[in-house]
Amino acid sequence: MTRTAIRTAILGATGYTARELLRLLLRHPEVEIVAMTTRQETEPHVSEVHPSLRGRLDLKLENLSSAEVAERADCVFGCLPHAASAAMVSELLGAGCRVVDFSADYRLDDPQVYAEWYQVEHPDPERMAKTVYGLPELFRESIRNAQLVANPGCYPTAAILALAPLLKAGAIAPRGIVIDAKSGVTGAGRSPKANLHFPEANENMTPYGVGRHRHTPEIDLILSNWAGVETNVVFTPHLIPMDRGEMITAYADITTDASTEDLLGILQAYYNNEPFVRVIEGLPGTKQVANTNFCDVTVRKVGDKAVVFGVIDNLIKGASGAAVQNFNLMYSFPEVTALL
Amino acid sequence: MTRTAIRTAILGATGYTARELLRLLLRHPEVEIVAMTTRQETEPHVSEVHPSLRGRLDLKLENLSSAEVAERADCVFGCLPHAASAAMVSELLGAGCRVVDFSADYRLDDPQVYAEWYQVEHPDPERMAKTVYGLPELFRESIRNAQLVANPGCYPTAAILALAPLLKAGAIAPRGIVIDAKSGVTGAGRSPKANLHFPEANENMTPYGVGRHRHTPEIDLILSNWAGVETNVVFTPHLIPMDRGEMITAYADITTDASTEDLLGILQAYYNNEPFVRVIEGLPGTKQVANTNFCDVTVRKVGDKAVVFGVIDNLIKGASGAAVQNFNLMYSFPEVTALL
Amino acid sequence: MTRTAIRTAILGATGYTARELLRLLLRHPEVEIVAMTTRQETEPHVSEVHPSLRGRLDLKLENLSSAEVAERADCVFGCLPHAASAAMVSELLGAGCRVVDFSADYRLDDPQVYAEWYQVEHPDPERMAKTVYGLPELFRESIRNAQLVANPGCYPTAAILALAPLLKAGAIAPRGIVIDAKSGVTGAGRSPKANLHFPEANENMTPYGVGRHRHTPEIDLILSNWAGVETNVVFTPHLIPMDRGEMITAYADITTDASTEDLLGILQAYYNNEPFVRVIEGLPGTKQVANTNFCDVTVRKVGDKAVVFGVIDNLIKGASGAAVQNFNLMYSFPEVTALL
Amino acid sequence: MTRTAIRTAILGATGYTARELLRLLLRHPEVEIVAMTTRQETEPHVSEVHPSLRGRLDLKLENLSSAEVAERADCVFGCLPHAASAAMVSELLGAGCRVVDFSADYRLDDPQVYAEWYQVEHPDPERMAKTVYGLPELFRESIRNAQLVANPGCYPTAAILALAPLLKAGAIAPRGIVIDAKSGVTGAGRSPKANLHFPEANENMTPYGVGRHRHTPEIDLILSNWAGVETNVVFTPHLIPMDRGEMITAYADITTDASTEDLLGILQAYYNNEPFVRVIEGLPGTKQVANTNFCDVTVRKVGDKAVVFGVIDNLIKGASGAAVQNFNLMYSFPEVTALL
Repeated sequence: MTRTAIRTAILGATGYTARELLRLLLRHPEVEIVAMTTRQETEPHVSEVHPSLRGRLDLKLENLSSAEVAERADCVFGCLPHAASAAMVSELLGAGCRVVDFSADYRLDDPQVYAEWYQVEHPDPERMAKTVYGLPELFRESIRNAQLVANPGCYPTAAILALAPLLKAGAIAPRGIVIDAKSGVTGAGRSPKANLHFPEANENMTPYGVGRHRHTPEIDLILSNWAGVETNVVFTPHLIPMDRGEMITAYADITTDASTEDLLGILQAYYNNEPFVRVIEGLPGTKQVANTNFCDVTVRKVGDKAVVFGVIDNLIKGASGAAVQNFNLMYSFPEVTALL
Repeated sequence: MTRTAIRTAILGATGYTARELLRLLLRHPEVEIVAMTTRQETEPHVSEVHPSLRGRLDLKLENLSSAEVAERADCVFGCLPHAASAAMVSELLGAGCRVVDFSADYRLDDPQVYAEWYQVEHPDPERMAKTVYGLPELFRESIRNAQLVANPGCYPTAAILALAPLLKAGAIAPRGIVIDAKSGVTGAGRSPKANLHFPEANENMTPYGVGRHRHTPEIDLILSNWAGVETNVVFTPHLIPMDRGEMITAYADITTDASTEDLLGILQAYYNNEPFVRVIEGLPGTKQVANTNFCDVTVRKVGDKAVVFGVIDNLIKGASGAAVQNFNLMYSFPEVTALL
Repeated sequence: MTRTAIRTAILGATGYTARELLRLLLRHPEVEIVAMTTRQETEPHVSEVHPSLRGRLDLKLENLSSAEVAERADCVFGCLPHAASAAMVSELLGAGCRVVDFSADYRLDDPQVYAEWYQVEHPDPERMAKTVYGLPELFRESIRNAQLVANPGCYPTAAILALAPLLKAGAIAPRGIVIDAKSGVTGAGRSPKANLHFPEANENMTPYGVGRHRHTPEIDLILSNWAGVETNVVFTPHLIPMDRGEMITAYADITTDASTEDLLGILQAYYNNEPFVRVIEGLPGTKQVANTNFCDVTVRKVGDKAVVFGVIDNLIKGASGAAVQNFNLMYSFPEVTALL
Repeated sequence: MTRTAIRTAILGATGYTARELLRLLLRHPEVEIVAMTTRQETEPHVSEVHPSLRGRLDLKLENLSSAEVAERADCVFGCLPHAASAAMVSELLGAGCRVVDFSADYRLDDPQVYAEWYQVEHPDPERMAKTVYGLPELFRESIRNAQLVANPGCYPTAAILALAPLLKAGAIAPRGIVIDAKSGVTGAGRSPKANLHFPEANENMTPYGVGRHRHTPEIDLILSNWAGVETNVVFTPHLIPMDRGEMITAYADITTDASTEDLLGILQAYYNNEPFVRVIEGLPGTKQVANTNFCDVTVRKVGDKAVVFGVIDNLIKGASGAAVQNFNLMYSFPEVTALL
């Protein structure tokens, strides 16, 4: 008896996360890629859009309706911008597809908060609070049976994985947490912009979105719900002259007399059986997780503070790898399939 | 008796070469910067356009006519695109200004050739053949008295300085010369483009303009005229993931039994008293000339070929430093003023 | 009936090529990694030497004799320096192992030439001329049955794949070929050196080994033998500030009136069924082959010359990917296993 | 009447800060460079050690005693490692030289604290508390008459300039300040090390020295003394894949109801007349201060915290530019001489 491959489609397949997703799915033995969409009128071949994939996949990007996508695909990966995504995702769900949504549309649970941070009305507000947040290390069981999974943001992935167990164990105080984040430039997307022009971004470091980056409420929501205490993080991202790799350095007050070893022990105990979180004793480097689905975390006690580090590849564990990990859970494949 | 500073203006002051020019002119004790132009309607302050110059110069970029520029300035540096440049330059010359033109408009001598390579009719064809090419190492005396100087292209600067003395000495054959060139990304200008987006250009090498780069006829014209032999170079530029720095590796047939030492001797003899050309015995690196007006050259005999190297900072010796060197000659200042 | 996995060992497993090889072999369904050697007294765990592999492989690097290696392994990948490699390889062959040797020891066929370029007597001269050169695109059938395969050098891989079909077709002249090569810094190995120190190599370009790089005779030997004409290339490598990626830009005289399309046609015809050589019509970029086993090639007619381009990832198609491709052929696995 | 140039010497002239210092001093109209020392036996020409300076300065590095240096020089710049520096500096002071010391030896005031952080007894403990800290923006008047100036560390420069005025104004709380710092790789010096090897440092971010970086007590001492409140900063530096540029992102509790504008106003008021500190309203980038002596600072209120940014070129304002600024004050030259 041959198992039938899962027919998958990708919405908005022109960006970096879509390219990485394609690369991973092409390695997945149980996946057939049946459609890729674009909102452009011209329908370019995938090898024109992603020349590195030349010879790997003979398919055009097509300007398809959700009905057309639903006809072909069992599972849909959504790489559309926020708001545009929810509009299409809700139709696909109605047509019976399962969906992993890369956009921020179903990560928050409150339409009000969404409208405030994203400056637009949510097109599908009822579904927000019911959607599972696709971080397997926190919500594995719910992901297995979900029809829709909200794939986490890149910074929230690293921040939550580094902080959540310490917070839940009561080892660090929920108030006053500072998250200083640093990201390679692929995190800013594929559209040319003045500040992302090579001679501007190269040999440069800049903070951006200070006090108003949209990953802030996402981090607070997930940390607060999961750990059962209310956080209110100060989150400051910086652009770093490298392609891929993301690091969060978080600072939190230690509530007890815990040592570095005690804090490490909490992380080790929680992530003991996780295939993709490595609690390391040395200091982390983004290069050790580049092109992988790993998240390396560690922690140090410095004075009265816990200094907590988390590193990921923003395009893999921070986006497309996480999506495939969620997909594997949804379809009962070994969780690491196509990811090692 | 106080000498009066030369009043200078810059046309098209938004790009990288204009910024570097400003930086150098601000160091020049005999220069007053009186105007900068832009073709945009908004007239931004220079510190908005070039934030690194904040606090250095309190001037707006203005949308000025050539008459308005000529009223204020003695000497004008033109950083406009080709064709647009000649149109304005010819008016400024008519109004009595002296001009150093960064565009390609007055580098070639034949309107036909210009039209072929630049795909546009030349707006001021009569002046082409009469204009001095601003490479002091070859044309110093003519530059001193010129009203108009055609500032050389970046690749031609490195290529001509490396090859010209060997060619004139008859040490290398004029036919079949190959010039493999490599440039940092500032050489491609300041406008964001897909291939210059940081995540595309970083960790990448690409050739471009193969067989049709516009510096090709410029190199051939100057080399041929100056050395008195007809060259027909094959020129292939490549984009390299770095900000600034340019290298040419040229391959030419050796015509005699000259050794590496003999070839080096020819270069040393010619550049003996030059303030900005260093004939080196080791192999060159662009970093040794970065942020300077130096051109380092060297040569090796390999089999029957001379392998000739030239490195410059494309924005300094390849553009703005050369312009200041020309300016110093035109106004009888010590040639190195503001350049060391 | 279950197929038994091939037991593989890696000699000298501390460098970048060994790390990439491990990464690929861990993905290979028919491979068991049974040993890794080091010549250091301390026997570090692989995760200390290659932190990116933490959690992937629980094995120490051991100071093993060839007898000890042969006891455990069917197939051995040799990542030792030249001369040291042949000494151990000859013993392993005697003990019945099959070997893919990354060193240069068995790439040349003449001990005299070897001694001249490598400044050392060859420890196993008789075997030199009998060893197959592991470039499947030229020598696939011989590789299948070989006990020993000489894995090609990185530059030769790109240069030979780009030039060989044009040379054999008689489209380009064998004499006077210029190969201007550019490589990322991983190509220079993992040992810290002054010129590879980040602040020296970053934002810099330098030629090296001009006229005396050891890949020169390797390119000439393979091209000459395979195409049946004698070449004598001028080869000039340059160090480029990027991690991985290698480009050769080759210049050869066109012997006929062939157009760009004709030249492309020759390459397309030859590589039509190759899984890892892509003849492209656009200009190549190293980033399109980074982290893959692909070699992209193309060609342009410029004046009387063919300008031929080849790009590879120096650590994959230029080393470890090629080794796995050879391994797949040697053990009759699908050639692309673990490489897509 | 001709003013006589100040005769200057550089101790330990092989590193990056010495090279930058030479570059600046060569531009200084009132400076003569009379000696450079090295502790190596070979006495290389400066152009061998710093090839970028070829043709600029015809001098050897010499293995000189302090007596020999004192005979030649009026003012000595010390670029020696800590402890080695104080030993030589104390002799030079005894011989009547004025000294700007780049090492950490005279930055702290307590031999005990020094011994704790630097793991060595201080060779000249009595002078520690009497030495002026060479940050002109805080200690200008004392610098003018000093015989010895302790040139600040790079991180302390950016951190203190960003935080000091806010702290003194009572706008931020002295306890619980977090300083997340990021530096280009030149900050780690010129000696090749495994983690600074190009393929390791490139495309990578890593924290280092967490909780034990030696700039920590220096920041606390200067901030506390100058602002009159005791700080106890948590300081975490990170290595960033770029040559030069340093950013500190500091997080402090706001003590009042001050707005972002109020906080900016405090900085603007303090730095109003400073030639090298620019209080900017936009967000900073290290590239805007690269190759300059500027420090750009700004601040944002985020929740209850002030997020304070400071950027410098670590080799200029963070080392050699600061030294020249101190030198200008010591000898009553215009403070900006050779620095614009």
